[in-house]
Amino acid sequence: MPAHKGKAIYLKSFPNGLPRKDEFELRDYEAPAPGDGEVQIRAIWMTVDPYMRGRMRPDVKSYIPPFSLDAPLDGGVVGEVIESKSDGFKPGDHVVSFMGGWRSYATISAGVAQKVDAKLAPLSAYLGVLGMPGLTAWSGLNQILKPQAGETVFVSGAAGAVGSLVCQLAKLKGARVIASAGSKEKCDWLLKEGGADVALNYKDYKNAAELSKALAEAAPNGINCYFENVGGMHFEAALNNIAFFGRIAMCGMISMYNAKEAEPVPAAIANVIARSVLMQGFIVSNYFNLAPQFAAEVAPLLAQGKIKFRESVYEGLEKAPDAFLGLFKGENFGKAVVRVGPDKA
Amino acid sequence: MPAHKGKAIYLKSFPNGLPRKDEFELRDYEAPAPGDGEVQIRAIWMTVDPYMRGRMRPDVKSYIPPFSLDAPLDGGVVGEVIESKSDGFKPGDHVVSFMGGWRSYATISAGVAQKVDAKLAPLSAYLGVLGMPGLTAWSGLNQILKPQAGETVFVSGAAGAVGSLVCQLAKLKGARVIASAGSKEKCDWLLKEGGADVALNYKDYKNAAELSKALAEAAPNGINCYFENVGGMHFEAALNNIAFFGRIAMCGMISMYNAKEAEPVPAAIANVIARSVLMQGFIVSNYFNLAPQFAAEVAPLLAQGKIKFRESVYEGLEKAPDAFLGLFKGENFGKAVVRVGPDKA
Repeated sequence: MPAHKGKAIYLKSFPNGLPRKDEFELRDYEAPAPGDGEVQIRAIWMTVDPYMRGRMRPDVKSYIPPFSLDAPLDGGVVGEVIESKSDGFKPGDHVVSFMGGWRSYATISAGVAQKVDAKLAPLSAYLGVLGMPGLTAWSGLNQILKPQAGETVFVSGAAGAVGSLVCQLAKLKGARVIASAGSKEKCDWLLKEGGADVALNYKDYKNAAELSKALAEAAPNGINCYFENVGGMHFEAALNNIAFFGRIAMCGMISMYNAKEAEPVPAAIANVIARSVLMQGFIVSNYFNLAPQFAAEVAPLLAQGKIKFRESVYEGLEKAPDAFLGLFKGENFGKAVVRVGPDKA
Repeated sequence: MPAHKGKAIYLKSFPNGLPRKDEFELRDYEAPAPGDGEVQIRAIWMTVDPYMRGRMRPDVKSYIPPFSLDAPLDGGVVGEVIESKSDGFKPGDHVVSFMGGWRSYATISAGVAQKVDAKLAPLSAYLGVLGMPGLTAWSGLNQILKPQAGETVFVSGAAGAVGSLVCQLAKLKGARVIASAGSKEKCDWLLKEGGADVALNYKDYKNAAELSKALAEAAPNGINCYFENVGGMHFEAALNNIAFFGRIAMCGMISMYNAKEAEPVPAAIANVIARSVLMQGFIVSNYFNLAPQFAAEVAPLLAQGKIKFRESVYEGLEKAPDAFLGLFKGENFGKAVVRVGPDKA
């Protein structure tokens, strides 16, 4: 079978601050023929995630190498195997991979591909609630925050792919959930379906002091757990309201990812000492070994309707930059996914 | 026996910023006659510690109540029992207590008094290396940082009561120790006796960027552990140089205790996420249950001369405010203690 000619999204230059749409470019891209141990897939869904912004800084040491301007952008993808040089896969298999996204055809190592069941859940869910964001939410909640029934859990970015699962899992554990999101529509959903007892629309608050006050009113005894997705005034409000022996899962600080200059973090950091607070930064790969345990717990909850999820669907590979930029503008509601091709070719 | 008339130090007003000497006052103070279950002691040594500054803020919720202007200041003391209404103590016993300091005679509950052995170590050591600062150092190192042999441990405030023990215990565990202190004399001692492989005189560095660079040169592979005593530019330098899966024991931020306004903390806090860093705030009372284990490990090391300690001795109760103010000026070298009375009356 010949290599497949398709398209891919490239970065034309490294962004400074909020990335601009004209810094992305759709180009022809031919996925190489698979070698031994590789498979070639036709992309069906691809994902955009906040961590990708970090890979757009060529000078920063991080847990994954920066993107190159000479290769397509990269990230998670769900696709159909069209050619396999691996015993584990055959054409027609549906797989998810955390590499090979941002292109219409990808050749990937069989080692990073995992078969998924299209009957258990929509294929796109393997990029969201049943994928990395789901494992991120579940791990941060269960491995770091460990809320007890009756404790108060504060979640920022609560209408996002990670936050919305944190809220629901925390609620199922008997915690009281305070969610923060950026629109009335998101807050309404969080209260109705998303497991939140209180939903704060952070756009109603001008600064950290106002948000701190609202959080204090919502949690008069303080917050025992904080799932940090946002940074900035959310971080400050959480530090101001953290309870003694509180726990903070440091998952992301999306409000700061496009900052051109160092953004100060509040002096309330000293509460970490006085209140014996645990802060644990993490990335999802720390918990890859727990993926089976995560799937065993969350897939049935999803099948039983005890977990809901939302998606913002962008149609067509060429829309991927819009989906990505939407992450930083608060435009997405739930998991942002891009449909690259039809479920069946 | 009549109540003992003596002196005590009072706070005349709550300080704003760095406390001034004229905000303290030596007044007559008569310790009440002990009731059932109480003992009266004659103070021999008292301690000044950074956490006391936090108790001088009447409006801040913390782990201990603020000081009152109507009572003597309070804190740790070593003394001789002169009257006992408790079966556990008799006149002549030497005891340490975390309450009853800042006065020449104190009446304390037998529950907070603990007998100490004047033959095992000098009495003042029970306020330092064998007391709360020692337990603080040992707990932060062993319960939070858990350095492995060959790992790099960075310690700020390294010539202080807590830091100097952290350095030595870390070195005994086979770690590489980078110490920061505020004079050449302190750095020389740290290198010669204090367990440090590298000693940085932080006064040689104008700002966080310079200190970060020096730390990067001293630890080209990053620091695995950071024992935080200081805050400010030390915290920033540590965050800039923290290794993947690094641990930070948040013990104190003395450089920020007198800040009148919120002092910004660096955006390098985001490294906590990207490098999967653990930050754990703590206060020593979290680990009171481990005091016997601490004493069993550290007292023999001290007796064998494997642990050294330094003291800054202030002579006379009236010098206690100077000793306390010295904490914030970096004037003390090792544990600051005040001799209130002679070993034997």
